[in-house]
Amino acid sequence: MRLLIINPNISQSVTDLIETEARRTAATDTQIQMATAPSGVAYIETRFEALLGAHAAAVIAGERQGSYDAVLVAAFGDPGLLALKEVLDVPVVGMTEAALMTAAQLGQRISIIAISRRITSWYRECVAQNGMLDRLASIRHLDRPLRDAGSVQEDHAARLLELSHLAVNEDGADVLILAGAPLAGLARGLAGRLPVPVVDGVSCGVAQAQLLHRLQAGRATQGSFARPPAKPNQGLPAGLQALL
Amino acid sequence: MRLLIINPNISQSVTDLIETEARRTAATDTQIQMATAPSGVAYIETRFEALLGAHAAAVIAGERQGSYDAVLVAAFGDPGLLALKEVLDVPVVGMTEAALMTAAQLGQRISIIAISRRITSWYRECVAQNGMLDRLASIRHLDRPLRDAGSVQEDHAARLLELSHLAVNEDGADVLILAGAPLAGLARGLAGRLPVPVVDGVSCGVAQAQLLHRLQAGRATQGSFARPPAKPNQGLPAGLQALL
Amino acid sequence: MRLLIINPNISQSVTDLIETEARRTAATDTQIQMATAPSGVAYIETRFEALLGAHAAAVIAGERQGSYDAVLVAAFGDPGLLALKEVLDVPVVGMTEAALMTAAQLGQRISIIAISRRITSWYRECVAQNGMLDRLASIRHLDRPLRDAGSVQEDHAARLLELSHLAVNEDGADVLILAGAPLAGLARGLAGRLPVPVVDGVSCGVAQAQLLHRLQAGRATQGSFARPPAKPNQGLPAGLQALL
Amino acid sequence: MRLLIINPNISQSVTDLIETEARRTAATDTQIQMATAPSGVAYIETRFEALLGAHAAAVIAGERQGSYDAVLVAAFGDPGLLALKEVLDVPVVGMTEAALMTAAQLGQRISIIAISRRITSWYRECVAQNGMLDRLASIRHLDRPLRDAGSVQEDHAARLLELSHLAVNEDGADVLILAGAPLAGLARGLAGRLPVPVVDGVSCGVAQAQLLHRLQAGRATQGSFARPPAKPNQGLPAGLQALL
Amino acid sequence: MRLLIINPNISQSVTDLIETEARRTAATDTQIQMATAPSGVAYIETRFEALLGAHAAAVIAGERQGSYDAVLVAAFGDPGLLALKEVLDVPVVGMTEAALMTAAQLGQRISIIAISRRITSWYRECVAQNGMLDRLASIRHLDRPLRDAGSVQEDHAARLLELSHLAVNEDGADVLILAGAPLAGLARGLAGRLPVPVVDGVSCGVAQAQLLHRLQAGRATQGSFARPPAKPNQGLPAGLQALL
Amino acid sequence: MRLLIINPNISQSVTDLIETEARRTAATDTQIQMATAPSGVAYIETRFEALLGAHAAAVIAGERQGSYDAVLVAAFGDPGLLALKEVLDVPVVGMTEAALMTAAQLGQRISIIAISRRITSWYRECVAQNGMLDRLASIRHLDRPLRDAGSVQEDHAARLLELSHLAVNEDGADVLILAGAPLAGLARGLAGRLPVPVVDGVSCGVAQAQLLHRLQAGRATQGSFARPPAKPNQGLPAGLQALL
Repeated sequence: MRLLIINPNISQSVTDLIETEARRTAATDTQIQMATAPSGVAYIETRFEALLGAHAAAVIAGERQGSYDAVLVAAFGDPGLLALKEVLDVPVVGMTEAALMTAAQLGQRISIIAISRRITSWYRECVAQNGMLDRLASIRHLDRPLRDAGSVQEDHAARLLELSHLAVNEDGADVLILAGAPLAGLARGLAGRLPVPVVDGVSCGVAQAQLLHRLQAGRATQGSFARPPAKPNQGLPAGLQALL
Repeated sequence: MRLLIINPNISQSVTDLIETEARRTAATDTQIQMATAPSGVAYIETRFEALLGAHAAAVIAGERQGSYDAVLVAAFGDPGLLALKEVLDVPVVGMTEAALMTAAQLGQRISIIAISRRITSWYRECVAQNGMLDRLASIRHLDRPLRDAGSVQEDHAARLLELSHLAVNEDGADVLILAGAPLAGLARGLAGRLPVPVVDGVSCGVAQAQLLHRLQAGRATQGSFARPPAKPNQGLPAGLQALL
Repeated sequence: MRLLIINPNISQSVTDLIETEARRTAATDTQIQMATAPSGVAYIETRFEALLGAHAAAVIAGERQGSYDAVLVAAFGDPGLLALKEVLDVPVVGMTEAALMTAAQLGQRISIIAISRRITSWYRECVAQNGMLDRLASIRHLDRPLRDAGSVQEDHAARLLELSHLAVNEDGADVLILAGAPLAGLARGLAGRLPVPVVDGVSCGVAQAQLLHRLQAGRATQGSFARPPAKPNQGLPAGLQALL
Repeated sequence: MRLLIINPNISQSVTDLIETEARRTAATDTQIQMATAPSGVAYIETRFEALLGAHAAAVIAGERQGSYDAVLVAAFGDPGLLALKEVLDVPVVGMTEAALMTAAQLGQRISIIAISRRITSWYRECVAQNGMLDRLASIRHLDRPLRDAGSVQEDHAARLLELSHLAVNEDGADVLILAGAPLAGLARGLAGRLPVPVVDGVSCGVAQAQLLHRLQAGRATQGSFARPPAKPNQGLPAGLQALL
Repeated sequence: MRLLIINPNISQSVTDLIETEARRTAATDTQIQMATAPSGVAYIETRFEALLGAHAAAVIAGERQGSYDAVLVAAFGDPGLLALKEVLDVPVVGMTEAALMTAAQLGQRISIIAISRRITSWYRECVAQNGMLDRLASIRHLDRPLRDAGSVQEDHAARLLELSHLAVNEDGADVLILAGAPLAGLARGLAGRLPVPVVDGVSCGVAQAQLLHRLQAGRATQGSFARPPAKPNQGLPAGLQALL
Repeated sequence: MRLLIINPNISQSVTDLIETEARRTAATDTQIQMATAPSGVAYIETRFEALLGAHAAAVIAGERQGSYDAVLVAAFGDPGLLALKEVLDVPVVGMTEAALMTAAQLGQRISIIAISRRITSWYRECVAQNGMLDRLASIRHLDRPLRDAGSVQEDHAARLLELSHLAVNEDGADVLILAGAPLAGLARGLAGRLPVPVVDGVSCGVAQAQLLHRLQAGRATQGSFARPPAKPNQGLPAGLQALL
């Protein structure tokens, strides 16, 4: 299968982190195609930045239509995810959604470890949109400024480990999600050093995309994920025009 | 006060309906400034169309920054609303949000009357995002194709009245919201013919915007509605650049 | 418009605080009429005290029927609010309800600052009755005895400010409500010194009452806010008799 | 034990129905004392009528203080229940609360059969206040005018049976509550003719009051059911004054 | 009435504690019959241990069928409770269920005091299954290893008292449940030393079983608590075979 | 990987259906090992039957310990699932859980199609335990007696298709789950004939088990899915003894 992974922020260093972890996870018969948003911000922490990322992701998905069998929107918070599911004929997976649905099979109560305080409100709303708020034990977060989205793991390793233990011991987490593309691959590094199972969004996203592609569950022609009804449009870039 | 009303779809006929109702509602000292999305679709029914509308609304809000004291995003479903609240220094009001918060003061259980079946899933998610699902009695909808978003009220008057009665008698609604910009002004027309109070999104939106402007409750400098943290960005149109 | 503001407790000093803030908020064409409960307690903190306040508020509303176009029940906790909505032909607004619906347009998660520990359970139940528990970040409260309901603001200013900061920083509040008539006007005093928007119940109540009066959304003749069905009654004071 | 049963409406015929069923249920060592509200309405269907009933119930409870070991507020909807729990040193039981907590031990999902359409909104809010909305399968109701609250059972027997079957077959009820004092005793009459267990509020209320009296679980001196803090009061009838 | 009390763990010392408290609570005309699980673990803290206890409880209930008028499953967490309700023709009561429904009549928000950290997740899921999560203020727990399930009360008395105070003062509990058969009788010992009402599962279970037996509410012949549909079975021990 | 699939009912015909679909779904490097419960009932529809199935599944998992890398409990309703997760060192997947988490990535609102009316209550409780009730659009079910659990698909094909359409058109489902092992493989047969994506529990269960095995997320040594604390046990069959 051909998997398009869209990084909705503009940081190539984050795209590289995602790609590395995605290739570790992917089956050998999966061809991975990476894309970085040409416009937007360095990393997405807020609703407005997610609006920018959602638009960029949609443009990319439209421009490359026909070249992939599934899409992974590779920012925790899933910018544009439900919108893309309406217009694409292939499975579209989000990092939050995939991580939540995977973690939910590894434990009852889930904690998310995030890279900044600011990002936590947006994450919480994304969990709510997934209907999983009752299973959320907590969102814990780093609290110092990020030097570089690409080096978060090295810069903050000890604190990330500490937050994970607090989530288990104080918040009652049965399973952890290391959230955000800048943490891609960290779950692999911490495995065995944590008292509960741990997953990250990239590996879950890649694996769930493969799974959905294999199941061939069918395309919605009715209901709220059918294509939008035909109607006049104007002024859209070619990528978006292609999706209508 | 100077109120910018953004129609996030491309239909001038809908903008005109909104403007007429907005001017009926507004206090005499409110200067209304209308804007229609230069890009997007004829009317918004789905999550993907809302993504387009959110982006267009943000561009408009950015381009006109400094020329208004409050903004009304004038599409039911509130595309881009929370994102705009983060980046603007003035109150930003949405039709759904304003209508829900107004209706909630007129009754305990609220029904929404919508213009199409397809639009109801998006509305339901918007109600959920407002945390008001427990107060939603039902969403009822027209079920025949729309000839023109600008003439829905005349084309479907009898059915709209019937749906309103069903919402009260079958679903237990205490108050009704006539949803969607194409229904702007209809609440006024139906008043006295319905067994419960009825509001529409445009008049609620204009009135709540005036109210918030008058209260001068202050701007968030912390929390999830403070401006996004400063960080690199690229490739954005001038309107969006202006908001960062 | 003629606005009746009912203080359901017996403290004239609290009525004066309410009136001062109400007059600051009200539009010039609003005639404010104040009423203080002739029977009841000095300030309302519990369900039983609210029962007393609800009864007194209903008697006042009945005795003065015809002399007002809207009513504000001016105790946080909204004693008797839903009951009065059934029997009055004009909008009836409560401080909690109005503050919640206003705050909900200024942020996603709301914290309430209260004047005593004891009062918080009753407030929480009032938020629940409004269906807004999911948006409640916290209720923070003063923890020392109140010298006088009329001087709470001066006596406890520093602690109130501190509680507000804790609500934002610890509890994730996007917006604050300064609750309880004894805090009327404080929001105005603290504006600019807090990191998020802040509202109080009196100004929100007055402003929402004006808004509802202007919208003329209609009176329920069916549903759960229609007048109670005609049936025998006996032994009621004239004020209550007038409402049946 | 001495059990005070308060009928918060003014109908002696309803008091008689309650008393008959209460005496059938009560253990031989329970002395039952009946009281009918001296003021109020013939039967309670709405929030405003419940406000009247709550006040009357409180006056009675205060006037007779010292003469009882437990109180049953004998109107479905539990007017004034939580308020009375704050001020009385003995268990206070409500018909709705007792019926819900009893029914919850007989099945997972509960349906309520009510005497009028109008009454259902108030009941629903009472179930919500008990935190049991998730276990409510439905509220079904009679839909023709009541000739006399005292003869509902005979006048509507067939329809009540039919509603019970609909609740089981259509709504998924595991257990039924026959709600409202006018239906007191009917559960006994229908037992064996229904496909699921059935309870009524009076027998549940009497039995739970006895149970709570026997357990002697202690009186709250802290928390939200401790007595209201001492503070000035004025203008209250002797019965209410006695409770402060 | 004849009450079968099943201890689903294998500890005779716990059975003895349960019996002592049960006999204190029971009316004189109740004949108590105790049973201890022949297979399983010393005390139940986890879902897997509950699976063992549920099976043992079912075998006992089947083997003794005909010898009892009601059953109390005497482990907090209620192993097998809903399953047994399907197959027995008499009331089946659980310690958690009975304690929750009793406590709910003594206060709005309930805290549970538990004997170990590990047990709290299972308890929380049991509260959720009862639909009472919204009324749960907290679950507090002992945090040192248990020497003997039969001597928990003496070994940990001071800490249990301290946890109770924390539940009231920190978590907002209106009423406490001392959970787990090893704490049977402790509520009686602590009464008067706690600031809010306190109940335990054994006394609540016995009292609610008596109450349900007295009400004779009827047996489900339809709905989800009717007997399982007849169908082939094989390989079951006689006790279970007897229940099908 | 070596995948143990446990059919917790005693019907070999159902085991065969499961195996056929499992082999269709599984990757070539997955070795499938089937097991049928030696004791229990022909198919599981109720909580009591699930108790039997849970016990049998645990015995099988214990007896074969060491011979598998993951387990699929192959009855919709997931008997014993959470219990097994505590005691096994490998991923344990349930048909309901796997189907819900997969379907949740294909649409927002999910409907379940079931084989009998009686089974729906148990399914609903299983969805609730997964915290997914907010995403459940409906549970639709066959309403005629089943001739044979092994031939449900052929006997009821037209009605199953009809129920699927009703779920989409009446209940607002975005995605369907064909529930119950007797429907294993039907999703494959109906693909393309339904207006929304459709999954079944067996293929989802197999695919998610493979995914979890590949992710190697780690084993809980703390929290509520760590092994139960060591403590005395007695009287258990060897299979269960092996798990402690």
